[in-house]
Amino acid sequence: MTAQSLSPRSQSASLLAHEPSIEPLLAQTAAGMDRVNAVILDRMRSEIPLIPQLAGHLISSGGKRLRPMLTVAAAELVGYAGDAQYALAAAVEFIHTATLLHDDVVDGSDLRRGKAAANIIYGNPATVLVGDYLFSRSFELMVEAGSLRVLDILSRASSIIAEGEVDQLTAQRKVETSEEHYLQIITAKTAALFAAACRISAVVAGRSADEEQALDDYGRYLGVAFQLVDDAIDYDSEAAEMGKGKGDDFRDGKMTLPVILAFAAGTAEEQQFWRDAIAGFRTEDEDLAEAIAIIARHGTVEATRARAADYAQKAIDALAIFPDSPMRQALEEAALFSVARRY
Amino acid sequence: MTAQSLSPRSQSASLLAHEPSIEPLLAQTAAGMDRVNAVILDRMRSEIPLIPQLAGHLISSGGKRLRPMLTVAAAELVGYAGDAQYALAAAVEFIHTATLLHDDVVDGSDLRRGKAAANIIYGNPATVLVGDYLFSRSFELMVEAGSLRVLDILSRASSIIAEGEVDQLTAQRKVETSEEHYLQIITAKTAALFAAACRISAVVAGRSADEEQALDDYGRYLGVAFQLVDDAIDYDSEAAEMGKGKGDDFRDGKMTLPVILAFAAGTAEEQQFWRDAIAGFRTEDEDLAEAIAIIARHGTVEATRARAADYAQKAIDALAIFPDSPMRQALEEAALFSVARRY
Repeated sequence: MTAQSLSPRSQSASLLAHEPSIEPLLAQTAAGMDRVNAVILDRMRSEIPLIPQLAGHLISSGGKRLRPMLTVAAAELVGYAGDAQYALAAAVEFIHTATLLHDDVVDGSDLRRGKAAANIIYGNPATVLVGDYLFSRSFELMVEAGSLRVLDILSRASSIIAEGEVDQLTAQRKVETSEEHYLQIITAKTAALFAAACRISAVVAGRSADEEQALDDYGRYLGVAFQLVDDAIDYDSEAAEMGKGKGDDFRDGKMTLPVILAFAAGTAEEQQFWRDAIAGFRTEDEDLAEAIAIIARHGTVEATRARAADYAQKAIDALAIFPDSPMRQALEEAALFSVARRY
Repeated sequence: MTAQSLSPRSQSASLLAHEPSIEPLLAQTAAGMDRVNAVILDRMRSEIPLIPQLAGHLISSGGKRLRPMLTVAAAELVGYAGDAQYALAAAVEFIHTATLLHDDVVDGSDLRRGKAAANIIYGNPATVLVGDYLFSRSFELMVEAGSLRVLDILSRASSIIAEGEVDQLTAQRKVETSEEHYLQIITAKTAALFAAACRISAVVAGRSADEEQALDDYGRYLGVAFQLVDDAIDYDSEAAEMGKGKGDDFRDGKMTLPVILAFAAGTAEEQQFWRDAIAGFRTEDEDLAEAIAIIARHGTVEATRARAADYAQKAIDALAIFPDSPMRQALEEAALFSVARRY
């Protein structure tokens, strides 16, 4: 990939000569992420031993730390000369980790990132409370960074995430959930934190409202694309096993886009299957296999990925106001990767 | 009660001619609390209907709103001329409410304030998530108030509360829990928010470090006294039924001071009873009756109340640096009331 191939308003991103990869973003944020990881390890400490044990179980479990990586990358993209981004990136990861811990309790998850979920090992009570601890710690980190605007952005993002999670809970087991409602849910529960993670670096760097908005847009569209693909993979007959248990969304009766589209396009018989399944009466392995077969018949995993590709392109377009740079290219390629990934 | 009877370093508080009452504090904060309650109602709103439903179930359930009342009272005590205390008091109440919602999930509570607990009506998942929402909203309110120092104080208090809750969980069902450890737990899980609720009013009013510390001390000592009495009431054979189910601490195997003192003073047979009970093998009504009988024999409810009275006196002493005023007297009497109350 050359500098030219992606600039300036890069629909040519699709002209990449190779499979898109997250590696350029990883490479360019590696030094920054070392500093972020040091903050994370330092701040998950507590005199109560169960707290670092439980937090460490999830934090050391091989998450990609994509959200804090976006904060570090955005700071570099806008030429930020300070070092507030490391604490803020750690704050973003703590918010995300707290959310995952609470999600695992909410969903009664067995697996997270291919390992036993924290709630299985440590129980729901400790998992809820350690989530609360990390959430509080994230605000302490933001306070240290000293920007009320950043606190405003991240506290609002946190409210929106919680609203999105409650909204998802309300929609659970409701087969009539619309595509529009689903997009609202994932924009809130996932994309809001991606957007905030990017925007805050423009804020601490004192960049223009347009640049703030561009980074917010990039993060938001990327977050939607990312969640769409996550939801596609859960029904992708070809995808490798995910870290979370395959078919979790199905058994939990969550209406994600592959199901929404398959239900809309389905025969009367298929629609009855979905009604029963989403209501919780078809939760065996053979039912999941049938769900995957119906979805394959209607091509709704591919349709979901296509929708994700549109959002990834919007994310790439949002970066057009920044001069071309290796970091801009890495962020553009990360958007393509978020769609192409199989895990 | 005359102005003289409590001033200036009021050990004479015990000379009150009547039973101590919370009424003077209620009366003097009534107008301010109307404003706080308006903020609370405004900010628990959401487009997701389940959020105000669930939050409202707890928020409208007749809690005394003691913590935000302390913020309002402290602002008046130090002569604060602004109006940041209303948003901050609402933020304090949201932190407290979020904690109660999560506590009810953690403890598997059936009752809260004499009504079915939110988790019983709405389930654990929604209760966890609405707690998260209120917690996020509390930080939004703090950001609007615009003081990084207040954000620092309340984010630290939140971390300490979560640590205290995890610590309590770790100590649960451990009959060997020491009095010192128990005091650490309640100082963290209860008194830290009382202290912060008082201190922040001195901060927004720009008062001296000594006045900040005095209000922090008042809140902290009051919080310890308050929790000691809560824990005493759960074993008080004469006390009216509490809002939470009587004997909850006993059945949950929580080591509170009445039990810690009774275990320490107990015969070999009594100690065996406590070992079995705290481990969870004696949870019937007759076991609770036996626990109450043993505790009555050793007078440890009274001993716990006496300990609480010492803390209430320390709280009163902390206020001595402020000139005598009706609000100072009301806060002093509230400290006495926290010990004398039977519910």
